[in-house]
Amino acid sequence: MNKPDIQKLIAQMTLEEKAGLLSGLDFWHTKPVERLGVPKSMVSDGPHGLRKQDEEGDHLGINDSIKAVCFPAASATAASFDPALIEKMGEALGDACQHEGLSVLLGPAVNIKRSPLCGRNFEYFSEDPYLTGKMATALIKGIQSRNVGTSIKHFALNNQEHRRMSSSSDCDEQTIREIYFPAFEMAVKEAQPWTVMCSYNRINGVYASENPWLLTDVLRKEWGFEGYVMSDWGAVADRVEGVKAGLDLEMPASGGVNDRKIVEAVRAGKLDEKLVDLCCERILNIVYRFVENAKKDTPWDMEAQHLQAADVAADCMVLLKNEGDILPLNKEDEIAFIGEFAQKPRFQGGGSSHINCFKTTGAVEAAAGLKVTYARGYDVAADDAPAEMIAEAVAAAKKAKAAVVFAGLPDSYESEGYDRSHMRMPESQNRLIEAVAEANPNTVVVLHNGSPVEMPWIGKVKGVLEAYLGGQAVGLAEVKVLFGDVNPSGHLPESFPIQLEDNPSFLFYGGEPRGTEYREGIFIGYRYYDKKKMKVLFPFGFGLSYTTFEYSNLRLSADSIKDTDTVTATVTVKNTGRRAGKAVVQLYVGDAEGYRNAIRPVRELKGFEKVELAPGESRDVSFTLCKRAFARWNTAIHDWWVESGDFTIEAGDSVANLPLKATVKVESTVELPRNFDTNSIFMDVMQDPKALGVMKPFIDQLMAAFSPDPAEAVSEAAGEAISEDMGAAMLNYMPLRGVLSFGGGKVSDEMMAEMLRRINE
Amino acid sequence: MNKPDIQKLIAQMTLEEKAGLLSGLDFWHTKPVERLGVPKSMVSDGPHGLRKQDEEGDHLGINDSIKAVCFPAASATAASFDPALIEKMGEALGDACQHEGLSVLLGPAVNIKRSPLCGRNFEYFSEDPYLTGKMATALIKGIQSRNVGTSIKHFALNNQEHRRMSSSSDCDEQTIREIYFPAFEMAVKEAQPWTVMCSYNRINGVYASENPWLLTDVLRKEWGFEGYVMSDWGAVADRVEGVKAGLDLEMPASGGVNDRKIVEAVRAGKLDEKLVDLCCERILNIVYRFVENAKKDTPWDMEAQHLQAADVAADCMVLLKNEGDILPLNKEDEIAFIGEFAQKPRFQGGGSSHINCFKTTGAVEAAAGLKVTYARGYDVAADDAPAEMIAEAVAAAKKAKAAVVFAGLPDSYESEGYDRSHMRMPESQNRLIEAVAEANPNTVVVLHNGSPVEMPWIGKVKGVLEAYLGGQAVGLAEVKVLFGDVNPSGHLPESFPIQLEDNPSFLFYGGEPRGTEYREGIFIGYRYYDKKKMKVLFPFGFGLSYTTFEYSNLRLSADSIKDTDTVTATVTVKNTGRRAGKAVVQLYVGDAEGYRNAIRPVRELKGFEKVELAPGESRDVSFTLCKRAFARWNTAIHDWWVESGDFTIEAGDSVANLPLKATVKVESTVELPRNFDTNSIFMDVMQDPKALGVMKPFIDQLMAAFSPDPAEAVSEAAGEAISEDMGAAMLNYMPLRGVLSFGGGKVSDEMMAEMLRRINE
Repeated sequence: MNKPDIQKLIAQMTLEEKAGLLSGLDFWHTKPVERLGVPKSMVSDGPHGLRKQDEEGDHLGINDSIKAVCFPAASATAASFDPALIEKMGEALGDACQHEGLSVLLGPAVNIKRSPLCGRNFEYFSEDPYLTGKMATALIKGIQSRNVGTSIKHFALNNQEHRRMSSSSDCDEQTIREIYFPAFEMAVKEAQPWTVMCSYNRINGVYASENPWLLTDVLRKEWGFEGYVMSDWGAVADRVEGVKAGLDLEMPASGGVNDRKIVEAVRAGKLDEKLVDLCCERILNIVYRFVENAKKDTPWDMEAQHLQAADVAADCMVLLKNEGDILPLNKEDEIAFIGEFAQKPRFQGGGSSHINCFKTTGAVEAAAGLKVTYARGYDVAADDAPAEMIAEAVAAAKKAKAAVVFAGLPDSYESEGYDRSHMRMPESQNRLIEAVAEANPNTVVVLHNGSPVEMPWIGKVKGVLEAYLGGQAVGLAEVKVLFGDVNPSGHLPESFPIQLEDNPSFLFYGGEPRGTEYREGIFIGYRYYDKKKMKVLFPFGFGLSYTTFEYSNLRLSADSIKDTDTVTATVTVKNTGRRAGKAVVQLYVGDAEGYRNAIRPVRELKGFEKVELAPGESRDVSFTLCKRAFARWNTAIHDWWVESGDFTIEAGDSVANLPLKATVKVESTVELPRNFDTNSIFMDVMQDPKALGVMKPFIDQLMAAFSPDPAEAVSEAAGEAISEDMGAAMLNYMPLRGVLSFGGGKVSDEMMAEMLRRINE
Repeated sequence: MNKPDIQKLIAQMTLEEKAGLLSGLDFWHTKPVERLGVPKSMVSDGPHGLRKQDEEGDHLGINDSIKAVCFPAASATAASFDPALIEKMGEALGDACQHEGLSVLLGPAVNIKRSPLCGRNFEYFSEDPYLTGKMATALIKGIQSRNVGTSIKHFALNNQEHRRMSSSSDCDEQTIREIYFPAFEMAVKEAQPWTVMCSYNRINGVYASENPWLLTDVLRKEWGFEGYVMSDWGAVADRVEGVKAGLDLEMPASGGVNDRKIVEAVRAGKLDEKLVDLCCERILNIVYRFVENAKKDTPWDMEAQHLQAADVAADCMVLLKNEGDILPLNKEDEIAFIGEFAQKPRFQGGGSSHINCFKTTGAVEAAAGLKVTYARGYDVAADDAPAEMIAEAVAAAKKAKAAVVFAGLPDSYESEGYDRSHMRMPESQNRLIEAVAEANPNTVVVLHNGSPVEMPWIGKVKGVLEAYLGGQAVGLAEVKVLFGDVNPSGHLPESFPIQLEDNPSFLFYGGEPRGTEYREGIFIGYRYYDKKKMKVLFPFGFGLSYTTFEYSNLRLSADSIKDTDTVTATVTVKNTGRRAGKAVVQLYVGDAEGYRNAIRPVRELKGFEKVELAPGESRDVSFTLCKRAFARWNTAIHDWWVESGDFTIEAGDSVANLPLKATVKVESTVELPRNFDTNSIFMDVMQDPKALGVMKPFIDQLMAAFSPDPAEAVSEAAGEAISEDMGAAMLNYMPLRGVLSFGGGKVSDEMMAEMLRRINE
């Protein structure tokens, strides 16, 4: 079907038809306008697979969704640090959507992992906005390369499930811009997702679904988003305000209630019909973009995608501990696989992203042909490990060369809809791990979880492999990594705190009934642990390999740049071990001068690259840094801004291991507005060249009154109790108004006003 | 002189005379009105001594202040946990003021020790508002018992020196009320200080000196303050706004500039002359209160007060470590006193509280007659420890039975006017301590500092005695405690973090140019370390003794009370050692149910008592707890409010050692206003009896549609992906508005509005 003239089409529609188009037909379709030949259009939950409900007779989604392929969840794919890999995964998902006639796959979900407790963390990428943005952009490019839309979500600040439909996420402007927006911003600017899904929550009191700043000023005007915005399912509070704010499509159907409210508002003159037209235009553009490019005959080879899912999963696994090179295991040895997850792996989370898999491969099945025994170890459904199960596991471990415990979080611990209340694994599993490790010193734990867990047994096991939620083929990947067919190359996309209480959001996460305060601000994840000099269980960016890498020779293309220039940092990375492997080179930027006039993190991720290297091979990896790498969000000008000065550039393989360091001077080309007034202090006046120029003659005169040493004079003026240090501080911190009272009448209000006018103009 | 009729007096004054009365005559006096016989009145810096400038010819305070007695600073006196002791100290100060004709002693300073970095911490009591309030109240009662006024300061939120004259302290209402106000509130309500001094800083953008909410609504209307408010020296920004806000007296003189502005504002109709009259009335009331009760013939026995200062100091010292009972030292043994502070102790801080002492006794002098040797160890002025000084110290230590290093912070590290930039002691002293400890295993460190320091050598010394800034007789006290004439009984009025970064305010303290965000909120000091389960170097309330105490038998007068009742908690404390000593029994209250609908500390200090016990003696100590002990500040009603439920009551000798625990149920008698709307969620409706009553028939109807199990039904409605747990959560978190869209048209907007009206009425 060809795309009609959308404007003309809208002109032909009645107000009721237009209002109708602004909400779903049912749970999964946009409304058709049969009179005018406008087709309905189907969307589907995702994003690591298709949760397509059967079309016929199941508009509410009562039945199972169709059989599909479940790829690793975002928590896992982020650990790959490999956008190219994820883009290819996106292509596979796009093909499946075309095969199934789905116009939009509802994802990726790019909310920042603010706390380990968020029930939906497994669907999210990282605690870092840059990494999240890069991975999301890759996935969108992959899916949309097949002419299928995406819906980047949940816009924005939807970082908890607790009270998610009413809670307000209260956060300062700078933090929103530096932490919670960049992934959306990068994806919109670099990959132009067809749709954006607004979140359930309020932002600083205003629902995302009726927030004009969010949906229009920032998303469209600043970032240039061209598609349509849909609501999360049931996120609409006031539909008419939503239309005004830029919420195009309400999902799912609202039984006609909100359609009528739109019509009434237009009729009452409370809503401009042009805004309704605009929503229609945006929706229809996307509806027809898919229709025009639909390719129902696209093949969907599920078996091939199953193997692709395994490959992706293998590249996502993070080797956290490998004492005495316990891994890889020897295929000739007898190995005990212990734990129900070895047979029935947990590989996805509950909720809208849940896939009805056409098949699943656990590690026991994947290890067929190897000398692997299996003991169940615990009953995940009962959240229990009966004594006989532990005894059986211990016996199996004792007989084996090594024991691998497949552990992690049960479905009920991690789900959309509610948050965890603690960061622990089930006590049954912790007990099992301790017992097995006691029985066999060569114990390895493989973890299945979408977010960090506490590891009370960490000192007692030799190996830990973090599989996250690795998709339906996770068992294949696990066996490949455990036995060395694949060299693990995942790195942690988040810090693993030692205990929940260590997390920066711990004190205020979840919030009170009205809302949640993001009091940790920009100090989320490693930005907090770094600054607070806190120990973590495993740091952001960390991941071991079966080989070793050496980082050397960090060099910059320039020592000094303007903020309108770029600087290129190049690092040499070498495989110094005896196996091929993939290094994840990470680049961090920080303010070399520490505290200047702003409170800043020590360092932030501004570049990464995954590099495959044969033994002995070395390669140069380059990163080009532009203004944004050095800028912070400035609330005075509501824009990105660089404070002139030195910045450190560090490279290495985790935020805690950065052996290389260089410094670049960046000069700002943007002058901030001056707002000096009588309460401005002398220190600030004297540090501002223009202000100093205007005030100089006058300050000199004042100083002369205090000669020879003003600080000493201040001290004297207040008795010997005041030291010179204190005198100097008093002078620094003295407001200009002090001159009016203490200047001996030399300065009148009018003179001061004139000076301030000249400074500020 | 007798007090005239103040109203009549004011009626006789010209506008210029009245305006003049609203600012100082000079640095230290209120203005006289000679025409009408109104005398000038002198105030003096304090508060742990008199910093009285010579009256004659020294109005600017160019010369030294008069000789006086320097008692221990507030940081030390708080550690006594002994209000009676501090009240007696106040009486001595009051006598001195009478002797010197001072109407008001400018103190106490009750700002909360938010960060170890605050330059003025040594003048402040504690990180805990209750302890601060109790100690300040005692001091005020003591001073004012002599008919001399006090000026509780700095009102309010003046918790840093950095940019103190312009910075805004940005803090939420609840934290202000629970942490930063209570000491002022308690002092005003229980001791009615004659004056209050407003602070330099802004509070949430508004200068304290022109903040009507602060100076009038809260201070006078809520708390009933009857005296006058003066500005901190130079704190006035807009004088006319100050008069409107309730700032009675500007200090010091403003050269007539602001007096003229007041006159102009009245003439221009911009300021009600009645407000000027009111300021005059408040100032004159206090001027005459002193005049009426002046007793110039009050004796001031400085020598006696010197000994009193020593006794106070001895009761303030906190024994932090005493491995192998290294202390008390044996008077027969040869002991090496090492460190310049042994001879020239640091016992007070720089700035307005600095006293010109009539004499000073260091530990070396105090130890005359004992077998004490002395080595200087470091040069405090040069901030250095030359190798020969260390060598001399090491030699002295080697020869002695035990070595005592007198260490701490130099004057330049801690002063009014600027903040510290780190929490370390001088590197020279740390090196000295390590060297001495290496030379003699029996090494004890005596610390002189107004705020916590890092102790990198803590594992290498056997004893640590925290002397804080102990006043001019500190050496006498130190020798008494070190050699066992006094059994130490001080307890820490603040947590000692291991490193600066551990402090809750670390990330945001100092702030950016505009101001400082109090993002840690109520989680200050132990409230933070407790909740975050963080290790500290020494916990709040901690202090050792040369004897041991046993706490037992905590019993409550009731299991259950209304918030209008009181409950009495009684503890038995016994001296189980062989020396007489003083125990500090501490009582903490916490929410037994943890997270209900509010984010709360684990426990808060709500009572303490210092008890002297002979060996083997035991005593019952009782604490009566009223509503305030269980209440939190509720921002919906802007008042203290108890959430009904169980509260824990714990007793022991530090926040980290509370062996006794009981539970009391407290029932609120105050119903909160209901503000349910269509965005309120079902969970909240169902937890509110009234709301549930109104909504019940309707909810039942809705539930029936989902029978048998609503959660299961929700799950089904969204496909198998949604577990029952998630279904239940979805139902809990669903806003009432969901019913309008999904209720199948059973509920109209009008029906919903009517229900909400009935619930909220």
